[in-house]
Amino acid sequence: MKKTFLAIAALLATAGASAQSTSSVTLFGVADVSIAHLKSDTNKLTGMSSGGLSSSRLGFRGIEDLGGGLKAGFWFEGGIPVDNGGSGFKFDRRSTVSLMGGFGEVRLGRDKTPAYLNIETFDPFGDVGVGAVSGSNLIGGSSVAVGTPEGSGHKRVSNSVNYILPKMGGFFGQVQYGFGEKPDGIANDRLASSAALRLGYANGPLNVAAAYGVTRGGTDARGVDYKAWNLGASYNFGMVKPMAQFATERGNHLRVDMYLVGATVPLGAGELRAAYSQISTKHASDADTQRFAIGYGYNLSKRTQLYAAIAHIKNDDKAKRGFGVSSSSLVNPTVANGDSATGYEFGVRHSF
Amino acid sequence: MKKTFLAIAALLATAGASAQSTSSVTLFGVADVSIAHLKSDTNKLTGMSSGGLSSSRLGFRGIEDLGGGLKAGFWFEGGIPVDNGGSGFKFDRRSTVSLMGGFGEVRLGRDKTPAYLNIETFDPFGDVGVGAVSGSNLIGGSSVAVGTPEGSGHKRVSNSVNYILPKMGGFFGQVQYGFGEKPDGIANDRLASSAALRLGYANGPLNVAAAYGVTRGGTDARGVDYKAWNLGASYNFGMVKPMAQFATERGNHLRVDMYLVGATVPLGAGELRAAYSQISTKHASDADTQRFAIGYGYNLSKRTQLYAAIAHIKNDDKAKRGFGVSSSSLVNPTVANGDSATGYEFGVRHSF
Amino acid sequence: MKKTFLAIAALLATAGASAQSTSSVTLFGVADVSIAHLKSDTNKLTGMSSGGLSSSRLGFRGIEDLGGGLKAGFWFEGGIPVDNGGSGFKFDRRSTVSLMGGFGEVRLGRDKTPAYLNIETFDPFGDVGVGAVSGSNLIGGSSVAVGTPEGSGHKRVSNSVNYILPKMGGFFGQVQYGFGEKPDGIANDRLASSAALRLGYANGPLNVAAAYGVTRGGTDARGVDYKAWNLGASYNFGMVKPMAQFATERGNHLRVDMYLVGATVPLGAGELRAAYSQISTKHASDADTQRFAIGYGYNLSKRTQLYAAIAHIKNDDKAKRGFGVSSSSLVNPTVANGDSATGYEFGVRHSF
Repeated sequence: MKKTFLAIAALLATAGASAQSTSSVTLFGVADVSIAHLKSDTNKLTGMSSGGLSSSRLGFRGIEDLGGGLKAGFWFEGGIPVDNGGSGFKFDRRSTVSLMGGFGEVRLGRDKTPAYLNIETFDPFGDVGVGAVSGSNLIGGSSVAVGTPEGSGHKRVSNSVNYILPKMGGFFGQVQYGFGEKPDGIANDRLASSAALRLGYANGPLNVAAAYGVTRGGTDARGVDYKAWNLGASYNFGMVKPMAQFATERGNHLRVDMYLVGATVPLGAGELRAAYSQISTKHASDADTQRFAIGYGYNLSKRTQLYAAIAHIKNDDKAKRGFGVSSSSLVNPTVANGDSATGYEFGVRHSF
Repeated sequence: MKKTFLAIAALLATAGASAQSTSSVTLFGVADVSIAHLKSDTNKLTGMSSGGLSSSRLGFRGIEDLGGGLKAGFWFEGGIPVDNGGSGFKFDRRSTVSLMGGFGEVRLGRDKTPAYLNIETFDPFGDVGVGAVSGSNLIGGSSVAVGTPEGSGHKRVSNSVNYILPKMGGFFGQVQYGFGEKPDGIANDRLASSAALRLGYANGPLNVAAAYGVTRGGTDARGVDYKAWNLGASYNFGMVKPMAQFATERGNHLRVDMYLVGATVPLGAGELRAAYSQISTKHASDADTQRFAIGYGYNLSKRTQLYAAIAHIKNDDKAKRGFGVSSSSLVNPTVANGDSATGYEFGVRHSF
Repeated sequence: MKKTFLAIAALLATAGASAQSTSSVTLFGVADVSIAHLKSDTNKLTGMSSGGLSSSRLGFRGIEDLGGGLKAGFWFEGGIPVDNGGSGFKFDRRSTVSLMGGFGEVRLGRDKTPAYLNIETFDPFGDVGVGAVSGSNLIGGSSVAVGTPEGSGHKRVSNSVNYILPKMGGFFGQVQYGFGEKPDGIANDRLASSAALRLGYANGPLNVAAAYGVTRGGTDARGVDYKAWNLGASYNFGMVKPMAQFATERGNHLRVDMYLVGATVPLGAGELRAAYSQISTKHASDADTQRFAIGYGYNLSKRTQLYAAIAHIKNDDKAKRGFGVSSSSLVNPTVANGDSATGYEFGVRHSF
């Protein structure tokens, strides 16, 4: 999953620095490619996607022991659409500097939002591929026929200050503030501040967590508060691990709810996955969406898995949600109001 | 040429994963910079170019042994214009995931086309620099005065499924299919599917290979099949290694042929290179191009070479082909119909 | 500060190369994030910045010993705005190939200008953050109300050939030529050739250096020579290290001068920094700018530092210079003619 390079300093005459200490940098990543067939009542498409199980990525990270229980660290991580090589590598997944100790961790930079951590944790399909619900942007985008709200929820936030609690018993938690970086007097735009919180408890087979976040968005002068919160839980019975989550986003007179129930089941050298979810557009009638997904992952090793998944989406007459294959570089087929859609995906994920 | 880092897992407390195995990631690349003087009858230019001998690049790759003769691997590699640092690093050269075994290799993602492998293998100057013919896009571009066809041949393909034969005696081979990823019913555009095949035989001093590829391109609703095939061979007599290739691209009532004869000759601590080529525009008269190139590479070590090359291009009255310095970031001077052009290049290639 | 990976070649069966030698690649970088509050008489802004003390970056470099005292090396280094992950990583800071020996170093590619080396060396705040003067582009940009000159000075140059003297006693020096890469007959634009020189003497506590550079810029057909030169010196008395620099840029009937006096003082486990500077617009009256900055850096280790800085800018009635937070991704607040501006910054720099 990762490797840490033995570092031997000061070998290079031209380097100009005098560091003599041994340190470590870790190079890590995921290369995940799948072949997918996606069809709606309107259209269909077969092609290659990146990140059907986990988003493909490349990262660099390191930890320095400062003594006295204090540590400093950095983390640079960017996504790679493996199917086409991408249009420009950037550290869009995470770029942070951290100070860590008995007090927990202060983390500065770009990172996941607390609400997103629950979304991907309590979905058997994570947040990518045909099976995942991608509930991190419920009222954003153009996924419903009624209303064209500006994006609200989000997966990651830039310019953020994070405080992460140390593990205390099974309790964990995080507070996050993201600067909007708009000078006073400048008209409002999408680049807005956010604040978020996550609390959970993980002990033995139980994992439960809740998250809340508010983002200042909208297009009018003062902006609008979009509020997202969710709650998820899983319990590992050994032969089956059921999980469930409820998420909601509200703001600007809009509200969309999502709930999901699912499970993973160890089966042979792999794992069966299944989930049922419903997205309910509360601010409009006849605009809900249901999804059922089932899949299997076969472990060739701890680091390499073959996987397959099938998902079916059923839209109400005024909804047109498709596959939120969020990290994929595969173009989604058009989904019209009321369309059903089905996706098939078969791929391989290799971690390093 | 490359180095593999000893990997020691699980040293980092924050990494959060439990992998304990030893694995390996290889960091590799080429830094190749040259000073070039290019002139046509119309214009001239002196400047710095990247990749006069080999395209400058940075890459990350790794192999995992899955047991039972099976292996998994990834390969991320992107080009770098060393002379100016580039406008955005991306993994445009290769981004793939592979499963390998006695059956051969299944490789998914972005990679070279089979036809391109021959183009660069059987040219003493490879595919970059003033000496290389860059026959991978014979009827594409605006290189001839007659006809303005849409690009046909290409060096690399995204969204591709490759099956590469295991080595059997001296035989080698590859089949490639590249998804077009256009939803049914969507009007045709340049992003089209492709299929290709390569077969060859390499044993002792002999190397011979043929490749065929078809790309669905064009601008009308149904598209047009552009077909490229080529054949190359080399034989290493020790004191001289002659090589030759023939390539052709056809489609949309257009046809361009290319043949090349060349040789490399070990000389001192280096190698002399020479090539003569002719590109024939079959769908138009008076639009052929001839090129003669000679160069020398002096090895400072296995990894570092100083090189120089001179090339002269002679265009018929209705041809305006210039230097296909394909990976270079040096702007080519204008070449008008019937212009002759001469290029001088002196540089250093360092591999790591 | 850096680490060199033990390299063990030829472990990978698919790599296809036969290198058996041990070599080394170094992965290095800086992750520097700060929280800054910037205000002018017109506007104010609080947010997260990258590179308040040193520009955040990621780099790859290596050296090969060619024998006989000769070495070859490469250096790829790009900036990363850690606060937001950036919009596209590229090797904009340095991308070079070098040959080194007793004769010194020949370096080809993109690198810092000699004049910029003095600018950052003899400023207690280097070239980034609220405290730095960023005197590398004195008459460029829109920083003064009078005249709208095209950019002249610059920090880095592409397509450059550098010759760096070997260390002789305390003397050091560098000559640089940057190709403009404009074909003859093409109308002039900003992409122009440059030539520069730097000479200095560093021995024990004393460091003194002068640099001169000329860039062919402007928008008319023939272009205009913009000339920059500067002189800096520092002397380390142990308990205090005073430094000073004078810089000037001239061209196209414009002239802007800058002088700076400052000092660093070891204090506790850190260092106090202070600087006063004045920028004088010689081609216009009432358009000068003064800045005073004070800061402190506390070393948690050799590689990790907490820092804070306060800077105040005072503009004449027709000047509107703000914070040249050059490597920052924090948007600067508007500065109107005659505005005063104050900046506060607190951050952490972690080197690896």
